[in-house]
Order: sequence, then structure tokens, then C-alpha cells
Amino acid sequence: METPPPAIVLVRPQLAENIGKAARAMLNFGLTDLRLVSPRDGWPNPAAGPAASGADEVIANARVYESVADAVADRAHVFATTVRKRGVTKPVVTPERAAATIHAEPGGCAILFGPERSGLETDDVAVARTILTVPINPEFGSLNLAQAVILVAYEWSKAEALEQPPVTEMLPPAPQAELDGMIAQLDGMLEEAGYFFPPDRKPTVQRTLRTLLTKPAWNSQEVRTMRGVLSALDRPRPRRG
Amino acid sequence: METPPPAIVLVRPQLAENIGKAARAMLNFGLTDLRLVSPRDGWPNPAAGPAASGADEVIANARVYESVADAVADRAHVFATTVRKRGVTKPVVTPERAAATIHAEPGGCAILFGPERSGLETDDVAVARTILTVPINPEFGSLNLAQAVILVAYEWSKAEALEQPPVTEMLPPAPQAELDGMIAQLDGMLEEAGYFFPPDRKPTVQRTLRTLLTKPAWNSQEVRTMRGVLSALDRPRPRRG
Repeated sequence: METPPPAIVLVRPQLAENIGKAARAMLNFGLTDLRLVSPRDGWPNPAAGPAASGADEVIANARVYESVADAVADRAHVFATTVRKRGVTKPVVTPERAAATIHAEPGGCAILFGPERSGLETDDVAVARTILTVPINPEFGSLNLAQAVILVAYEWSKAEALEQPPVTEMLPPAPQAELDGMIAQLDGMLEEAGYFFPPDRKPTVQRTLRTLLTKPAWNSQEVRTMRGVLSALDRPRPRRG
Repeated sequence: METPPPAIVLVRPQLAENIGKAARAMLNFGLTDLRLVSPRDGWPNPAAGPAASGADEVIANARVYESVADAVADRAHVFATTVRKRGVTKPVVTPERAAATIHAEPGGCAILFGPERSGLETDDVAVARTILTVPINPEFGSLNLAQAVILVAYEWSKAEALEQPPVTEMLPPAPQAELDGMIAQLDGMLEEAGYFFPPDRKPTVQRTLRTLLTKPAWNSQEVRTMRGVLSALDRPRPRRG
């Protein structure tokens, strides 16, 4: 079942520039539902656009509300983002746990973020069912608004299509026979060079080399390259000039 | 067993302000090892401090290097942070997967981040064993430097409180400097043998070989063995009888 992406609710944000940065952070991870509760400097605000760095659709569609309650009225589960608080009587979750809850909530979620300087007030937190806290260095907690938003958006996006493991263009490891050919070529060269000395240690040394050369899981192309290297070293034919 | 926190390596960063922001992002999640490769505007730089918002220890202890290779010489596993690239022949992982690898790597890791505008060059990526890509909105990918750093640092910090995975008996991969020594030895031999032909393809061929030889994650003992092999092939001295 599809669950709606969470709404990001900025409560009494101070600088429009930070609203723009939050919009940019959201869109990087596929979030577009931005809600503003009583932005200090009014809305729309020309300072938001440049800071959004192209996340214009998020800015254009942002909705303004007079209260936190209004902003989250259509949502089933509200999270309040705070640093660790004393005396809180609500469950506290990490962004990771919050993301799991959001993905399991068909009624939709909203995540509150407080003003830059002071954070959410007790009354704002009271609206929420759950507190969302980013586990942070206890000796240096200094997340700005857009950074808090991006961590939450990032965690949410992991369970989305964005989370497809990146496509790699790695070729599969070469078949054993190709490796054996390469190892035999090296063996022959080393024999010629007097590498296996004393002779009774030869089996051990050969085993060590085999372990070394099978470890990389080289693909066929890489094995061919290595054989080219060996051939070059075996019969130097300078082609300069 | 404790594994060292990753080093954050900013490659040719442009604005000192962004170095400060990256330092702040790091310290939020407990990272302090900041390395700068050829910062455009020099170092130290007074613009970094205010942007660090109190992460002064990270700024004060940042070290400057002339090359990516120097910056990661003591590290066993290097990641290159990039957007999705075509034609890349290295494994690509998410921040989450990278964090798991970092926590399992006793030899220490380094994570490369490119300049703000252009990102890492092909030659920078060639130094790394693994590519780190944040899965992002395919229609709007606009992560800034500090945001990329914070997502990686955040993922790393998650496992900090958790139990470390069981220790395996494998030796750790050799530090990057040992690999570089081995690769330089092979390069010299191949040059002598006329392998790099035509000469204008030399950088590409060297990159291919570097990818081949960093793939195995050979440990120090294995690197020594390979150097012994190369030396034997370089100066054949039959010792029979």
C-alpha cells in the first residue's frame, strides 16, 4: 500500500533564506509538501527562491497556516523535531524509526521543525504524538534547520524508489580457467626468473600466489589486461619513437 | 575491536566558508579528522571559523596536503563521493553501506569529497577503491558539500553505540602508500618494457592498472609478496643449482 510522503512543517521560521534551504533539502529526497506556520517575515518572500537553488515547485506550492493545529489537521501522526528534552512524556524516536512509522501510516504524517534560534515551544510539542530527535554529539549539537530537514528526508527516502541500490557496471569475475591461464603464465615467468628458491618451497609459494591472484575476483577483461602486463614484462620490446 | 573514525578529505575546496560548514557537519556526528587537498583560497583561512559555528577544534586540527594520494596515504580503504557516473568500474555503495564497511575496517578509511562546483575529477576517483553515492531524487540532485558530509557522518555515527562486528582473522588491507609504492614499481617496469603505447593512452592505461591493483584490498604481506614477484621479473637472477 502506498502511504503519502510526510508534510514538512516549519513552525514560525525566521529567515526566508532558511525556508528556501529547507525546500532544497526536501526535494533532494523527493519531498514536496512544505507547510509554514506564521513565517516571521511573511510569505511569499523573495529571499526564499535563490536559497532553494531550483526547488521552485516546493516554494511555489508551500502553504501558510496560522497555527500548528491547522497545519497538521489532515494528518494522522505528527512528529515534533527537538533536541533531547527533559520531562517529556512522549515516545522519542530517531529519524530512522520515524521513517518506518511514516511508511506504515496510511493516514499521512507531518513533521514539525521549530524556529531557527529557539526550536519548538512546549505547546507545539504538545500537538505531536511522537518526538523525533537526531542522535547527535552530546558535546556539540549544532544542526541547522535545513540539516535537520535533510536528515529526516534522507531517512524517509531510503524506503522509496530512490533507495534502489546504485547501478554498477561491474563485470562478473572471470571463470576459473581464465585465472588458471594467467597464473600458469606467471608461474612460467617466475620459474624462468629463478623466483622459486629454494625449490622445495615452490608449492607453498605457488599457493600463496594463487591466493593473492584469486582474491581480487578480476573479471575477464581485467585478466586479459594482467596477461598483457605479464607479456610485456616477459619479452620487453620497447616501441618508443 | 575499535576501528578509527573516517578521515573527511575535501579535495580542492573552493570557499573556506564551506570548509567551516563541513567541519560543523562532521563534529555534530563526532568526526574530527579533516584533511584538505590544495584548498583554493589557502589555509588557514579566517572565513572558515565563523561558518564552523563552534567546531573550532576540527578547523584547528585540519591538515593540508598537496595531493589526494598524500592525504590518504595512511588509510586502508578510500571512498570517493560522487553522483552516479557512467562507465565506472568500481563498486558503488550508499552512505549506509559505506558506514558498515568503515566500521569493519581496522586499517582506517578516508572519504573524498570534490570541489563545490565540479566534484571529483576522474584522477581523484581513480585513487579510491569504492564509490560512495547518496541515492537522490533523479530529477533534482542538489546536495551541497556540507550536506553530503553530514549524511555520511550521520550514517557513520549510527553504529557508534552499537556492538562492533566480530573480529575476523584477516589482516587489514595495506595502507594506500604501500599500494602506491607497488604501483609505481610496476609502472616503472612497464615504462621500461615499452608497454605504454601509444604514449597518449598512458594515463588511461595507468588508471586501468590502478583500478585493477586496488581492487584486491591486498594486505601488507601480500603487497610485499607482489613486490617480490615484480622484483624477480625485473632483474632475473636464476639461482638454480
